[in-house]
Amino acid sequence: MDRDDMILISVDDHIIEPPDIFVNHLPDRYKKDAPRLVRSDKGTDIWQFRDNSVGNVALNAVAGRPKEEYGMEPQGLDEIRPGCYDVDERVADMNAGGVLAQMNFPSFPGFSARLFATEDSDFSLALVRAYNDWHIDEWCGAHPGRFIPMALPAIWDAELCAREIRRVADKGCHSLTFPENPVPLGYPSFHTEYWDPVWRALTDCGTVMNLHIGSSGRLAITAPDAPPDVMITLQPINLVQAAADLIWSRVLKEFPHVRIALSEGGTGWIPYFLDRIDRTYEMHSTWTLQDFGGKLPSEVFREHFLTCFISDPVGVKLRHDIGIDNICWEADYPHSDSMWPDAPEELHSVLTAHDVTDDEINKMTHENAMRWYSFDPFAHVPRARATVGALRRAAEGHDVSVKPRSKQAAVAPSEKLANYHRKAEAAMAAVRD
Amino acid sequence: MDRDDMILISVDDHIIEPPDIFVNHLPDRYKKDAPRLVRSDKGTDIWQFRDNSVGNVALNAVAGRPKEEYGMEPQGLDEIRPGCYDVDERVADMNAGGVLAQMNFPSFPGFSARLFATEDSDFSLALVRAYNDWHIDEWCGAHPGRFIPMALPAIWDAELCAREIRRVADKGCHSLTFPENPVPLGYPSFHTEYWDPVWRALTDCGTVMNLHIGSSGRLAITAPDAPPDVMITLQPINLVQAAADLIWSRVLKEFPHVRIALSEGGTGWIPYFLDRIDRTYEMHSTWTLQDFGGKLPSEVFREHFLTCFISDPVGVKLRHDIGIDNICWEADYPHSDSMWPDAPEELHSVLTAHDVTDDEINKMTHENAMRWYSFDPFAHVPRARATVGALRRAAEGHDVSVKPRSKQAAVAPSEKLANYHRKAEAAMAAVRD
Repeated sequence: MDRDDMILISVDDHIIEPPDIFVNHLPDRYKKDAPRLVRSDKGTDIWQFRDNSVGNVALNAVAGRPKEEYGMEPQGLDEIRPGCYDVDERVADMNAGGVLAQMNFPSFPGFSARLFATEDSDFSLALVRAYNDWHIDEWCGAHPGRFIPMALPAIWDAELCAREIRRVADKGCHSLTFPENPVPLGYPSFHTEYWDPVWRALTDCGTVMNLHIGSSGRLAITAPDAPPDVMITLQPINLVQAAADLIWSRVLKEFPHVRIALSEGGTGWIPYFLDRIDRTYEMHSTWTLQDFGGKLPSEVFREHFLTCFISDPVGVKLRHDIGIDNICWEADYPHSDSMWPDAPEELHSVLTAHDVTDDEINKMTHENAMRWYSFDPFAHVPRARATVGALRRAAEGHDVSVKPRSKQAAVAPSEKLANYHRKAEAAMAAVRD
Repeated sequence: MDRDDMILISVDDHIIEPPDIFVNHLPDRYKKDAPRLVRSDKGTDIWQFRDNSVGNVALNAVAGRPKEEYGMEPQGLDEIRPGCYDVDERVADMNAGGVLAQMNFPSFPGFSARLFATEDSDFSLALVRAYNDWHIDEWCGAHPGRFIPMALPAIWDAELCAREIRRVADKGCHSLTFPENPVPLGYPSFHTEYWDPVWRALTDCGTVMNLHIGSSGRLAITAPDAPPDVMITLQPINLVQAAADLIWSRVLKEFPHVRIALSEGGTGWIPYFLDRIDRTYEMHSTWTLQDFGGKLPSEVFREHFLTCFISDPVGVKLRHDIGIDNICWEADYPHSDSMWPDAPEELHSVLTAHDVTDDEINKMTHENAMRWYSFDPFAHVPRARATVGALRRAAEGHDVSVKPRSKQAAVAPSEKLANYHRKAEAAMAAVRD
């Protein structure tokens, strides 16, 4: 397949939230207490919510920036690509990057929205719902067929969480972000019955639970003085642990239709993992009493788990050891793993190096994503306009040049950003008066 | 290659220590305070040392036992194969299992001998030296060419540790067991300069540092109520972390001849890991300032790390993505991962399934182990008597039948075991008088 003929749906990208997300969807009585994006004296933008200050770490929005500027320091929205927080700009960047559709994880609330979990459950639920409505109606709704909507969970209460899964499913959202392990967040483990309402709602609604690396808040850290490369290298470990945790849990036995995505987990480790769980089963099930009704754990894995990759040559080479129906592509825009706007070039070169057939390419680049997430972009975008080549032609003239920080700030559409701030401030002023 | 023509050196097996290890090598003044193997009323054997009681967990000595009896309960030495603790019986089991040579990790002191680290450094060092002398002179010395000797570290003091490395190297021991991460044990990390004397001694002596899974004392646990299968599945994770910790550390840059073995770590995950470190380097080294002098991290890995596998089909399939000179075979006798006495059958079927050439088989089964550990079994055992087939012919008549626990106890050579106890008691009585 030619590079320009690929159709790309990415199942892992990120929104850097603009300041106005709570303007239209939060009941007025909660507005003055809602999280606010505040500009610091240093020119960084910080979300303030009660005692929490959440800055935007630079590594999280480096798309289009020279690698020399990667790092951990916080920054301002005017220093990053507007595509990080503005949906029209995002779609323009997607076009330039040849990407038909994306699924966007949250940023400042945390992957499992734990920031919103307060002692006041009603308030917390209002925040989660407002975010979800903003995300589904305003962000995804602005460009039909271009985004797989994904909901935040009401992580502090399994019953409320189940209700929210059902509510957003009625709005067409069949994707939920969730912590890869609830235990470090102080919630019951996947081995209790506590989460049964969630599993039941996911099953009933055909909704996929997405476990993103880092969503438990616990990182694989070897030593306090280890260089950052160690932590970066080990990020997928949390999902190895989550996959092990869930494959041996009662969940998959009790809820045989539950489906789980290992978001940003990579794929190259999966064949080894499948060997390992089958071997563990062979050697130990006589005393651990694991029973999959005659199936091997690796078969059960393929019934329940979706994996994804950015380029991952080992995973592409071993795609049939993973399961060709269990692999999706991801772009990770605008995080530092993203190859934007050249992701199609990188992906295509890996696919070519491993003689991947057209059928296999289609499955990994978009068909699997469509099936797993009940998502049909072609109801809105004709196939002929959905390819890498067609999208890029539509984006001609869009500036994708790599810019150093200072220069990017200078060219960012500050008028747009100012508008977001004005909208947010006006909404807050209205409820204060 | 025919199965019977393979020559097998295993780089990961285990001793269940007999009661008399301190009889011949500990100064008399320390004997009454040394660890003692005590028989409990329940028929289990427990090492008593100060406030510590260390039992032998059944999973650690199940070779030759039906899988239904695997489990975590402690047991007595008379319930396990005598090959676990008696070196003549061990060699008979090795012959029956077609294994020319083994490298044996300790059991009750812990993989890093942390049990011996007391407030009295002289006493602790005496224990470490006594163990090492017993291991090198009595255990390995009893059957030249059949064991790669491995020393315990003086883990509480880098200078003493370095001195012990040099002392045992003079006795022909070029292998050291060490924690995969010193931090959970309360010692400085691999990123400090604290361990420099150790790295220097290893380099000077051509000694390999072996990091065994679990040696840091920290297991990858997802939740307190997770089933044991989760922990078993995740055991290699600690070595993924150790490999990441060390590859990005200053150690490999400062000590370019250091060599490290990832013991019982498996191999199937290595190609993904190498991709991941190269990608991390490509994407982040501009700000993390990692510099390998023009080499890729994956190249540096192959200069420093030895990996090993039991059967691991993915690792065999991807042997050239790992590095054919970086792979050794292991048997894990008498632990629960061991296939004894049928390991050659399993190994051979995996090698055959992946069309491994004779040259590659020789490297993985024994040549790499000989080179890495400066070990030459053929100085003692002629090649023609070293093959799987020849060893098994020599073992004809040796009982390898699988026996349930009660039956094994009944047939264990209790006279031999009683002798060990008598020797230990006599030695203690002598110093008490």
